[in-house]
Amino acid sequence: MTKQSIKKAVVLLSGGLDSSTTLYYAVSKGYDCHCLIFDYGQKHKKEIIQASFVARRAGCKGVVVKISLPWKGSALLDNKISVPKNRAMETKGIPVTYVPARNIIFLSFAASYAEAIRAKTIFIGANAVDYSGYPDCRPEFIRAYQAMLAQGLKTSVEGKSIKVMTPLIHLSKARIVKLAVNLKVPLHLTWSCYNGKSKPCGVCDSCRLRAQGFAQAKIQDKALV
Amino acid sequence: MTKQSIKKAVVLLSGGLDSSTTLYYAVSKGYDCHCLIFDYGQKHKKEIIQASFVARRAGCKGVVVKISLPWKGSALLDNKISVPKNRAMETKGIPVTYVPARNIIFLSFAASYAEAIRAKTIFIGANAVDYSGYPDCRPEFIRAYQAMLAQGLKTSVEGKSIKVMTPLIHLSKARIVKLAVNLKVPLHLTWSCYNGKSKPCGVCDSCRLRAQGFAQAKIQDKALV
Repeated sequence: MTKQSIKKAVVLLSGGLDSSTTLYYAVSKGYDCHCLIFDYGQKHKKEIIQASFVARRAGCKGVVVKISLPWKGSALLDNKISVPKNRAMETKGIPVTYVPARNIIFLSFAASYAEAIRAKTIFIGANAVDYSGYPDCRPEFIRAYQAMLAQGLKTSVEGKSIKVMTPLIHLSKARIVKLAVNLKVPLHLTWSCYNGKSKPCGVCDSCRLRAQGFAQAKIQDKALV
Repeated sequence: MTKQSIKKAVVLLSGGLDSSTTLYYAVSKGYDCHCLIFDYGQKHKKEIIQASFVARRAGCKGVVVKISLPWKGSALLDNKISVPKNRAMETKGIPVTYVPARNIIFLSFAASYAEAIRAKTIFIGANAVDYSGYPDCRPEFIRAYQAMLAQGLKTSVEGKSIKVMTPLIHLSKARIVKLAVNLKVPLHLTWSCYNGKSKPCGVCDSCRLRAQGFAQAKIQDKALV
C-alpha cells in the first residue's frame, strides 16, 4: 500500500461548483477521497446524478446516502415554498432556501463514515464569502463543529482527531472558478441550480452566484454551453 | 393557545428505558414534546415500534426518520459482527456496539426538526454513568454540541438558541428506574435489548445494565413479566 492510499478523506459532494472543486483540491493534495452524496429530498435531484459523475471522473468512490427530513422547512424541499427568482442578494436575513441544520447533518454522516473507514480528514466546500447568508458555512461554525467532534467520537477519545478542512472558505466565487480550472475540475458535469429542471434556471441565488463567479473570472461556463 | 403548548421540545426517543423516562420527564415539566425516532438499520428494529407505542401513550407526536449508514461499523448494524454476550463491563475501551457518530447524527436531525417547528429545546436521554463507554453520552460532548449549535443554526444567528437538555446524564440506572416509576413511564412498553429477537436476550450490555438498574432499585421489570 502506498503512503497516498493511507491518507483517506471523506469529501461532502453535492455536485456543485464548490464541492467538486473541493474534491479535486483534496485529490491534488494526495488524499484517497471517499465522496458522500446526499439524497435529502431536494427538488434539484439532478445534482445527485451529477455528483456521482464528478466522483467517478475524479476516480473516487461515491456513496449516496438517502435521508428524509419530514418537517421540510425550506424552499429546497417543500413544493409549497418557491425558490426565489432574482432575489436582491444584499437583502438581509437568511433566505428561504436555507435547510434547517443541513451542514450539521451532512457533517455528522461524514464523521460517521470517516470513523468507520478510519479517515482522519473531512473536506467540505463551505464558503463564507458568497454563502447566501447560511450560518452553517461560516468559519466559526466549522471551528465549533470540529471542537464538538473532538469530544463525541471514539476516534477522539482514543487520542486521534478528525479534522474538518474547508479549502474554499475564504475564496470569492471568481477565485473558486479559477481554482477549478487550474485543478481541471470537469465543470460541465457540475450542477448548481436549486430548481429541479433539466437546465439551470439562471434566476435562483445559486445560478446567479455561479454566473457572477464565472463572469468575474472571465471564464465561460461550459455547463451552459 | 396555552403557555404550555408554546413550550415545544424535540425528544430523541429510542423506546428504551432512558429515552422513555426522558420523554416523561419533559412532559412532566410542561413541554409539548415532539418525539424523533430513528430507523437506522439497527438489528433491534423492535425498539422503533416500542418507541412509537411510548410516544402515543405519552400523548405525543412521534416522527420516524429512516436513515442509512452504508458503512455500518457496529455490532448493532452489521450482521457480521455479533452483539457481545456477558461482556465484562469493566473492560476498558469502547465496545463493538458503538455506532460511529450515532448521537451526533441523531442530535443533528433533532436540531433540524427543532428549528423547523420553532422548538427551543432538545431532550436526549444520554447517561454518563452507565454509558457503556460511549463517548457521545458524556457531558463534555453535550456541552460541545450545544456550543456548535450556537454557531450553525439560523435560530442562533437570530439571537435565539436551542438548548440540549440531558436530565438523566448524572443518574445511575437504579435512580433512572425509580424516576421512571415516579413519572409513570409505561416500562412494560420500553425495549432495551440490542438483539433483534422477540424477547430481550438478557446477556447484551443493554439488557444487563437494565437488569442491574431494576435490581438495585428493588423494582420488578414488567417488560420481562
